[in-house]
Amino acid sequence: MSILVVGSVAYDTVETPFGRAERVLGGSASFFAVAASFFSPVRLVGVVGKDFGEEQLAAFRGRPIDLEGLERMEGKTFHWQGRYSLDLNSRDTICTDLNVFEFFKPKIPARYRRSEVVFLGNIDPVLQRQVLEQVDEPRVVACDTMNFWIHGKPAELKETLKRVQILLVNDTEARELSGEWNLVKAARAIRAMGPRTLVVKKGEHGVLLFGDEGIFAAPAYPLERVFDPTGAGDTFAGGFLGYLAGVGDHSDANLRRAVVMGSALASFCVEAFSLDRLLRLSRPEIDERYRRFQELTRFDSL
Amino acid sequence: MSILVVGSVAYDTVETPFGRAERVLGGSASFFAVAASFFSPVRLVGVVGKDFGEEQLAAFRGRPIDLEGLERMEGKTFHWQGRYSLDLNSRDTICTDLNVFEFFKPKIPARYRRSEVVFLGNIDPVLQRQVLEQVDEPRVVACDTMNFWIHGKPAELKETLKRVQILLVNDTEARELSGEWNLVKAARAIRAMGPRTLVVKKGEHGVLLFGDEGIFAAPAYPLERVFDPTGAGDTFAGGFLGYLAGVGDHSDANLRRAVVMGSALASFCVEAFSLDRLLRLSRPEIDERYRRFQELTRFDSL
Repeated sequence: MSILVVGSVAYDTVETPFGRAERVLGGSASFFAVAASFFSPVRLVGVVGKDFGEEQLAAFRGRPIDLEGLERMEGKTFHWQGRYSLDLNSRDTICTDLNVFEFFKPKIPARYRRSEVVFLGNIDPVLQRQVLEQVDEPRVVACDTMNFWIHGKPAELKETLKRVQILLVNDTEARELSGEWNLVKAARAIRAMGPRTLVVKKGEHGVLLFGDEGIFAAPAYPLERVFDPTGAGDTFAGGFLGYLAGVGDHSDANLRRAVVMGSALASFCVEAFSLDRLLRLSRPEIDERYRRFQELTRFDSL
Repeated sequence: MSILVVGSVAYDTVETPFGRAERVLGGSASFFAVAASFFSPVRLVGVVGKDFGEEQLAAFRGRPIDLEGLERMEGKTFHWQGRYSLDLNSRDTICTDLNVFEFFKPKIPARYRRSEVVFLGNIDPVLQRQVLEQVDEPRVVACDTMNFWIHGKPAELKETLKRVQILLVNDTEARELSGEWNLVKAARAIRAMGPRTLVVKKGEHGVLLFGDEGIFAAPAYPLERVFDPTGAGDTFAGGFLGYLAGVGDHSDANLRRAVVMGSALASFCVEAFSLDRLLRLSRPEIDERYRRFQELTRFDSL
């Protein structure tokens, strides 16, 4: 199945305790698309400026990523600059230059209308709904959001969530969206808003999946060196949804496999700046890390 | 195999958002002993005051917990008072009255000399070593500690750790003991100090086990209602070490089972004040929760 992803394509300037990367490829849709493309064809909808050229596009070339939906607009590409703390557990945004992204109105090419899986990246919930209005009823709609929309457009977000089957958020967002501190209660409240499946990302503490068949808990892969956490959540989403689209159904067993696959992809993402590690990643490496997750979590019956 | 546990037996006064418990049974050795006693005989070494009577001892009666080593001293029993935050994720200590615990010098009864498994609760590392000097070489020495000793008696603690096979600490303590933020690096540094097996407790985020055969990650059981977290770590340790002593060897497979068993016990502990839930817990309930951990974490091969 094809995945349609709508989100940001950006330049990132990132400082970590280990170094600095200047105006490298970033944006939620970029990480998502490359991660998902290991498992299924991806159709990318986003916007870049005139400063975004063939060199940057090279990251997507040679992969099953359709770029017809990547609009090129007069102006400059979205640029985010951030600095991580010594422990990499928090970051300060130094600047956010929305540039052309400020005027982003997702236009879905006719060829994309029949996408079976749609991923609504973290954009205005009004725009997220406009995307859904431009596609035939997809089999799966998955969605990301953030505190900015949870507090800024709560009613609009709730409208969007009614049409979403899978919501992916981090633990703080789950708590703020539901108004519940306890994640089990938060999940119940959020699932009543629409998404039957809720994925709660907890960073270094792993992922919780809440679905019709109960809860699944996966750890994060214990890495000796995390180099740059930027994009890990979007990479998780790409691996998760790409895997689901690739296998073609979202049974409980496949949802669980997809969580592990997303976690595996994310564990590679953080090993280098930008998409660097993802771009030199091979499917055998991914499958090997999946097996390591099995080794990491297995225990026997009594 | 018998487990010898040395630690505190105390009165706790606890305030949570859900209520208040006044001078109820607490202390690391109390939680540990009751949890471990589901799996193997326990020998308790600690000290209480004259205000600790048959009513309090009732918690230990009818279980395979030997109380010959529980000294009764002139004075009052150790009393801790704490108040939890609304989210239960932090707590303030309101008072710590050490009372007779201030003068605690562990005296190991002759009958306890041949304990195959020894658990050194969170006490002065000098006292921990004095315990080891009073027993024949045990098969397994496990140990807990805290920031107070990590910073206050680092050299003494390191002497003790040379004689320890299993160290159980929380993630903050692992970081402070090793001076490494990254837990994989922290584990390597700590394992070089002596303990071949390191168990890192991460509260609601579960447990990491570092051993000769790699890393094992277990989640915490997702509870809808955490009533009182007091004693969860000690209960984990009791379930973990009790299970290991019960099966009699600490192979990698058994260490993993023991982590899950400890997590299962801890998930019951937090459902009520003090040892209340543990005292009305049955072995079938424990085994049922173990199976739920399997359900929570299982995923299939690709």
